[in-house]
Amino acid sequence: MELRIDRQALVPVVQQIVDALAVWLRQDEVLPGTRLPSARHIARVNLLSQSSVVEACERLVAQGVLAPRHGAGFVVAATAAQAPPDPAGFDGAHVSQCDRFGQLNLGCGGLPESWRETDDLSYAIRQVSRTDMAGLFNYSTPLGLPALRQQILKRLGLLGMDVDESRIMTTSGASHGLDLIIRTLLKPGDCVVVETPGYPLLFDLLRLHGVNMIEVPRTPRGPDTEVLESLLVTHRPQALFINSCYHNPTGSSLTPGVAQRVLQLTQAYGVRVIEDDVYADLHASRGTRLAASGIDRNVIYVGSYSKTLSSSLRIGFVVGGAGEISQMAHIKMISSMGASRFCEAVLTCLLASGAYRKLVQRQRQRLSVDREAALQLLEDADWEVFGQPSGGLFIWARSRISDYAQVRRQAGRLGVLLSSSTAFSPVGEASGWHRINVAYACDPRARAFFQATAVNRPQAF
Amino acid sequence: MELRIDRQALVPVVQQIVDALAVWLRQDEVLPGTRLPSARHIARVNLLSQSSVVEACERLVAQGVLAPRHGAGFVVAATAAQAPPDPAGFDGAHVSQCDRFGQLNLGCGGLPESWRETDDLSYAIRQVSRTDMAGLFNYSTPLGLPALRQQILKRLGLLGMDVDESRIMTTSGASHGLDLIIRTLLKPGDCVVVETPGYPLLFDLLRLHGVNMIEVPRTPRGPDTEVLESLLVTHRPQALFINSCYHNPTGSSLTPGVAQRVLQLTQAYGVRVIEDDVYADLHASRGTRLAASGIDRNVIYVGSYSKTLSSSLRIGFVVGGAGEISQMAHIKMISSMGASRFCEAVLTCLLASGAYRKLVQRQRQRLSVDREAALQLLEDADWEVFGQPSGGLFIWARSRISDYAQVRRQAGRLGVLLSSSTAFSPVGEASGWHRINVAYACDPRARAFFQATAVNRPQAF
Repeated sequence: MELRIDRQALVPVVQQIVDALAVWLRQDEVLPGTRLPSARHIARVNLLSQSSVVEACERLVAQGVLAPRHGAGFVVAATAAQAPPDPAGFDGAHVSQCDRFGQLNLGCGGLPESWRETDDLSYAIRQVSRTDMAGLFNYSTPLGLPALRQQILKRLGLLGMDVDESRIMTTSGASHGLDLIIRTLLKPGDCVVVETPGYPLLFDLLRLHGVNMIEVPRTPRGPDTEVLESLLVTHRPQALFINSCYHNPTGSSLTPGVAQRVLQLTQAYGVRVIEDDVYADLHASRGTRLAASGIDRNVIYVGSYSKTLSSSLRIGFVVGGAGEISQMAHIKMISSMGASRFCEAVLTCLLASGAYRKLVQRQRQRLSVDREAALQLLEDADWEVFGQPSGGLFIWARSRISDYAQVRRQAGRLGVLLSSSTAFSPVGEASGWHRINVAYACDPRARAFFQATAVNRPQAF
Repeated sequence: MELRIDRQALVPVVQQIVDALAVWLRQDEVLPGTRLPSARHIARVNLLSQSSVVEACERLVAQGVLAPRHGAGFVVAATAAQAPPDPAGFDGAHVSQCDRFGQLNLGCGGLPESWRETDDLSYAIRQVSRTDMAGLFNYSTPLGLPALRQQILKRLGLLGMDVDESRIMTTSGASHGLDLIIRTLLKPGDCVVVETPGYPLLFDLLRLHGVNMIEVPRTPRGPDTEVLESLLVTHRPQALFINSCYHNPTGSSLTPGVAQRVLQLTQAYGVRVIEDDVYADLHASRGTRLAASGIDRNVIYVGSYSKTLSSSLRIGFVVGGAGEISQMAHIKMISSMGASRFCEAVLTCLLASGAYRKLVQRQRQRLSVDREAALQLLEDADWEVFGQPSGGLFIWARSRISDYAQVRRQAGRLGVLLSSSTAFSPVGEASGWHRINVAYACDPRARAFFQATAVNRPQAF
């Protein structure tokens, strides 16, 4: 099997192998159950490393295109021929965030690989590797490196959160923070309020813990506070999980009025608020956050550097009451010993030097340009847009074509992969709304797709 | 407050601050509740960075010597004056592994900082930072980088485990592996067998999950199989947790006969075996492992690179059945997105180049010399030794002095910190046995301590 790999291309080799295998599967109409040649064979014929081939195959396994073969190797999965893989599983996070399966991943949850900037990160890594012996070898402290937490607290101070160091703990990314919060505050059978649409991974995590979810609809200004109040009265939930700024998937942000009402209600009913703010640094202005006035009351705050700097370092953090942070740190230590001290030291270096601040400034500027262009494209195609996001990665929108399947087929034909129609609902309800990553929306494939799904144009289905 | 800090010393500055603060607390007989000067003040007076002072204070908090002050800063803890801090909490892992609280940490769970070797690790880090874009930015794959898993599988093949890649998953260290195994296979109220004495962190983790522990005594040849059989008959436990090689804390290893019997019994009673083998690479020969013949039956195997290469990278792994590994990978992804891809890439580099193999060879040789010397010291002092460990880090031994408290007082006077007398028991039962880290046993303070606790010498208490 010969694959077309271009060693001069900017696309990483593993991604090229993924794409080339996908092309082979489609063009040759390979049947489910067909055995793939061995990774060693593919590697030898194409002058590739065997591990790159295996990694590519495993990405295709994660996408449901291949399946591991009993014994060794891979076969074409039973489901491969049916539909493109579901991009909302794990929020598109565990596989390459650029093109997927040779298609444009329009609903992707992260920045494109081409936007990543290596120089500062690579420099910080080399610096830490030369100068920080403890960073190379030791466990971190239970709450995370003090120097890192001081840097994070500085930024939180600018957002209006004035807390001391005993109230912040680093985690291996935001999802680890959510897991520790749930392990500390909730038990199976407990009931919590989640926003709908909302973050698929949070739903998976709550299900894993046996926690029941009740839904509050997200409006362009935040959760619907009337519905929220009736849920608090009727169900007496333990907690509310919320994205205040640049909500995933709608891109909407809380207004000050809604924020105040949410705080009033949750405090009146003794409900904890878990504010997941992983897109915070894509916000140019201060923004409206519940933690700004609620962190000393009932709000726990979750942040991360995976969306902006690097998903590889695995650094996020949680801010809460000193007592519960201490409990979480205990669970963190006995269940994983926490984040990598080396990665914590690298991030500290980037925050302290100002390199991180400049990086997110550039990202914000670039996103702002792309967002304007994307909103214009959607308007031209007469799509309905949920609110008008003022920042962040996402636009939530739908074509006026009422037949969801027709829109999806058109996307498939034009090489565009849409976000799952069901993943953003805690109960898996289908919807015609799509999460659109503004950084991908100006790709020619996306433009062609929006044009093809404009209802005021003649359709050619 | 002036601290004596030597910037030319090999001891890291933070550790020097810890030691200096400890000296101040002792020499000035500072009362519990006394407020420490602010970190900023201590830093300014001593020309130190504020973050180093805060990190030192937090280590002392973790040791129970200081407590965070309401508002900000630190006070002397109520318990500080009573006893030296407990080294078995977190297995001495989250604080500096060398000297603790200005004392020799004779029961420490890791290699001394002075044994760490920077060159190869630092080189691999720089190499990955320059060449591996995906390693810098992306999430890893659900099972971990294929190239890393191939390297680990090679080593496991040498140990007699012949499994394919779908059966191995990387974790953020061995404790994360144990956590994922428990989350996947056990539920609150389940019953498992643990060895006594055994690993304190495992007991904490099982308690966290609400799993009941029943104890099988560890003999120098492995768990007592007669007791094990009666426990299996009476309690019908779900699983057995075991260290086959260089058991923590006794340093003993399974004999082939005991291993065979353990496999027979657990297979006959349908009991899963979780074999925690974090000291595997300190073993020169192949050794006896349950996974070698049981990995295709009822054994799950856990490994790590924290004990040998670096605790900072946070890389361990689990080997099990493909189905349960896939379940664990799902939980891993939704609860933390797994280990750092960058750290995985660095480890891959060290394994592939042979640098890791040479590193552990040197560690084994050095430990072998120290172990012989330590056993001789203990023999001279007429201590009782549990078995005669043939490798690894630990010797389990006790003085013939029957008054445990007397032995501890003598240790304290001579600047030696002993392992906790209760932490290695799942029910916190006190014992006169001590875990002795052979890398520390030849320190002059340890020598003086062994001599002072020899029963055939005149005692001066």
